[in-house]
Amino acid sequence: MLKLPVTDYTENVADYRVVSNVKPGYLRPLLPSSPPTDPEPWSAIHQDIESKILPGITHWSSPRFMAFFPCASSYPAALAEIYSNAFNGAHFNWICSPAVTELETIVMDWLAQALGLPECFLSGGSTHGGGVIHGSISESLIVNMAAARDRYLASVTAHLPPGSEEKEEALWNLRSRLVALGSSGTHSSTKKVAQVLGVRFATIPVSEADGFSLRGEALAATIENLRARGLEPFFLTATLGTTDVCAVDDFEGIAQALKPTFDTSRDIWVHIDAAYVGAALVLEEYQHLAKAFSSFHSISFSPHKWFLTTFDCTAVWVRHRSWLVQALSIKPPYLRNQFSDDELVTDYRDWQIPLGRRFRSLKLWFVMRSYGISGLQKHIRNGVDLAESLEDKIDSRRDIFSVFTPARFGLITIRINGESEQQINDRTEAVYEAINTAGEFYLTATVVNDKFAIRVCTSVTKVEEQHVQRMFDVLVQTAETEIAKGHKWLECNL
Amino acid sequence: MLKLPVTDYTENVADYRVVSNVKPGYLRPLLPSSPPTDPEPWSAIHQDIESKILPGITHWSSPRFMAFFPCASSYPAALAEIYSNAFNGAHFNWICSPAVTELETIVMDWLAQALGLPECFLSGGSTHGGGVIHGSISESLIVNMAAARDRYLASVTAHLPPGSEEKEEALWNLRSRLVALGSSGTHSSTKKVAQVLGVRFATIPVSEADGFSLRGEALAATIENLRARGLEPFFLTATLGTTDVCAVDDFEGIAQALKPTFDTSRDIWVHIDAAYVGAALVLEEYQHLAKAFSSFHSISFSPHKWFLTTFDCTAVWVRHRSWLVQALSIKPPYLRNQFSDDELVTDYRDWQIPLGRRFRSLKLWFVMRSYGISGLQKHIRNGVDLAESLEDKIDSRRDIFSVFTPARFGLITIRINGESEQQINDRTEAVYEAINTAGEFYLTATVVNDKFAIRVCTSVTKVEEQHVQRMFDVLVQTAETEIAKGHKWLECNL
Repeated sequence: MLKLPVTDYTENVADYRVVSNVKPGYLRPLLPSSPPTDPEPWSAIHQDIESKILPGITHWSSPRFMAFFPCASSYPAALAEIYSNAFNGAHFNWICSPAVTELETIVMDWLAQALGLPECFLSGGSTHGGGVIHGSISESLIVNMAAARDRYLASVTAHLPPGSEEKEEALWNLRSRLVALGSSGTHSSTKKVAQVLGVRFATIPVSEADGFSLRGEALAATIENLRARGLEPFFLTATLGTTDVCAVDDFEGIAQALKPTFDTSRDIWVHIDAAYVGAALVLEEYQHLAKAFSSFHSISFSPHKWFLTTFDCTAVWVRHRSWLVQALSIKPPYLRNQFSDDELVTDYRDWQIPLGRRFRSLKLWFVMRSYGISGLQKHIRNGVDLAESLEDKIDSRRDIFSVFTPARFGLITIRINGESEQQINDRTEAVYEAINTAGEFYLTATVVNDKFAIRVCTSVTKVEEQHVQRMFDVLVQTAETEIAKGHKWLECNL
Repeated sequence: MLKLPVTDYTENVADYRVVSNVKPGYLRPLLPSSPPTDPEPWSAIHQDIESKILPGITHWSSPRFMAFFPCASSYPAALAEIYSNAFNGAHFNWICSPAVTELETIVMDWLAQALGLPECFLSGGSTHGGGVIHGSISESLIVNMAAARDRYLASVTAHLPPGSEEKEEALWNLRSRLVALGSSGTHSSTKKVAQVLGVRFATIPVSEADGFSLRGEALAATIENLRARGLEPFFLTATLGTTDVCAVDDFEGIAQALKPTFDTSRDIWVHIDAAYVGAALVLEEYQHLAKAFSSFHSISFSPHKWFLTTFDCTAVWVRHRSWLVQALSIKPPYLRNQFSDDELVTDYRDWQIPLGRRFRSLKLWFVMRSYGISGLQKHIRNGVDLAESLEDKIDSRRDIFSVFTPARFGLITIRINGESEQQINDRTEAVYEAINTAGEFYLTATVVNDKFAIRVCTSVTKVEEQHVQRMFDVLVQTAETEIAKGHKWLECNL
């Protein structure tokens, strides 16, 4: 491996304060107000990286970063990006660089196999599905939701004469009643995309008793209720590993609930958001979770989270690739070339919003080859095990903590005990704020069904048992201080 | 500068056949059908890059790449990407890495100044505008068109009571009549985005006599016509440098045509697509073109085309940043942090579709500092001059060529002479096909108002006068052969 200045940073990332503590607006006074007329030497730029940029960086690869979900880079991925930048181009069709298109198809098939996805998502599968790399889950959602909308509008109005005023009227009437669905645990990106596309969004409730998993019955009830109001549910985001608590939706139940309309004109498109936990499907013990996906329409998973693939890289599969192409293809003369016209090749620009595309498959390819599936399994298992280790520790101090949601896929959520829901919430929030203020660790919190919980995510690559132990010690110490504060306050009031 | 294996490629790119000549499907038989279980050594991967990937690369930085528009990388940009990957993170809000947000605001202000944009697009300007980096022009279009739609719907229905059935009815009625506008030279991405957002798209004609520039009168006539049919034009993409012939729309005329509704409830949002030619605004002699932009709403320009900034990087400015935030903001609890809540900082996730973001401002910063504005001016002027040099050569052979559109911003379009429009088209297409088949150069063609023309773009960084001379010689030789063929065919028919 080459010795780059940046490897010093990567190797020593644990030495930095995990979250930047600059003040808002810190950078502007440090830089000129306009660009230089004359070239500056590299030494000046490099010095500014060290003195002005580094202090404003929050270190996502630090072993004390246990917030959000990870954003895991690796040397193989970083090296692939160097090649990708050397082979720089817009790559919007096959001839723009055949390797860019073809490697993407192959690598997406590799990845589908590694995760145990149903064969309908392979490029050579029975339903003419396939995979594409997007930049984000949001992009995958906008593409799939738009395709779902167009497919739904077309199938529901299929009986009306094309181009007729009657059809036009029916289409606009339908459009005004479309509803995209998600659970209260669904990531906000589905709601944002519905807002961008100008369709309604409805939230299906989930309960603590069900582990915050979206159940088939709740889905069926919401659909019935919406239809009774004259609305048209057409799209659902179901989640493998929700952002707040890593809940897994009840895929079998969802498939069952949607069976009556499956493949009919009112088929509801189900998109699986496996942004973070998709990586865990590389472990055979979790692959049963993907079995029901054959009843669904599209899947997205972001290897840039936990799969050692430098940001950004979101893998997206669809059961029928024609659904995307029908929604997104527009082909003016200056983009034509013989091979595309003959449909011998995939034009990925018709599977995504942007025209141009980066050579992102290279980093997935480098990662899968450099680690091998066995190496990736080891990496994922490490994150899973560390959260379970933290759960054991938390369990040993039931006098101060309760596990809100158990360790699942490297994420555990916890609360500080108290005498009322209000006191539990207040104490948990106070402990959370105190830990982040101290700055040794970086955590995020969540509020689910009005309950405040601290999220601890142990899946950053550099996290080891020693960091989990230290995290636990900090939690105990901070919680004890907080509980003692409460006692003192009570004493003062006596 | 570091010596990387990829620098060999960059330095010697002229040695490769400019367009890959692999056959569709070449790569699959060369690779295993599934990912490896065990790790592979770097040497194996590196060897595959050379033997399997390189043959499938089309060389966008070759001095014989005169197709499309360029996709210009540079060492400073590539180096910035290495740092950006080291500081890997999702960076979706300020605290995720304050430097990522703050450098972007500063660098977008630098860039706006370098291009001579009106002050309303600066972050500290009078209208609270500002800039953001997107991944593509398409993304900038979807964001701005959605914001334009929401603003239009809100303003036209502002008089109706919020939440009333009457308002809801009016909103859906309006939605069904919205029309986005472009000229026949507008890039297809506007039409695609309208399709994704589910709004109509109307094309305004342009004429050869006007140099294929969209005129204010034509716009006014289209708007009048649409309104007479009960439709609601709400968005226009105007272009600085169309993809086909680098036409510049008549910005003053457009501003004049829209004056009657400017800042009224039926204000039509004008987005300036300066994807490629935006780079040329760094030359003072072109900055007068940006004067009228103060009457418009948003601008996008892709530094990844001609501005030496590795793909992808699209700079987007808006006159009022609140327009974007209102259309795109959704803030669940787990994304909150004190500084964002206090509005002391910019949350760029509310200016774009995706949540996460790369540290793209770093490469713009490195490029502007490493070259200085003077270096960038020199680079741009070189591309401009080379097309003018080709035009002089073409002019010297009026017996075989005619200039279809003159050299503008490094692009010239030409046609082969003939006795009828049909013969001109046929000969031009034949010459175009013959040159691409020969493979020494890579060109694209266009069809504008039924006229087939060859595009020659001279703005790839490595293009020099010697390559332009050779391009001209190849054009002459190929055209003469084609014309001779025609004569022979005539003789045979005698």
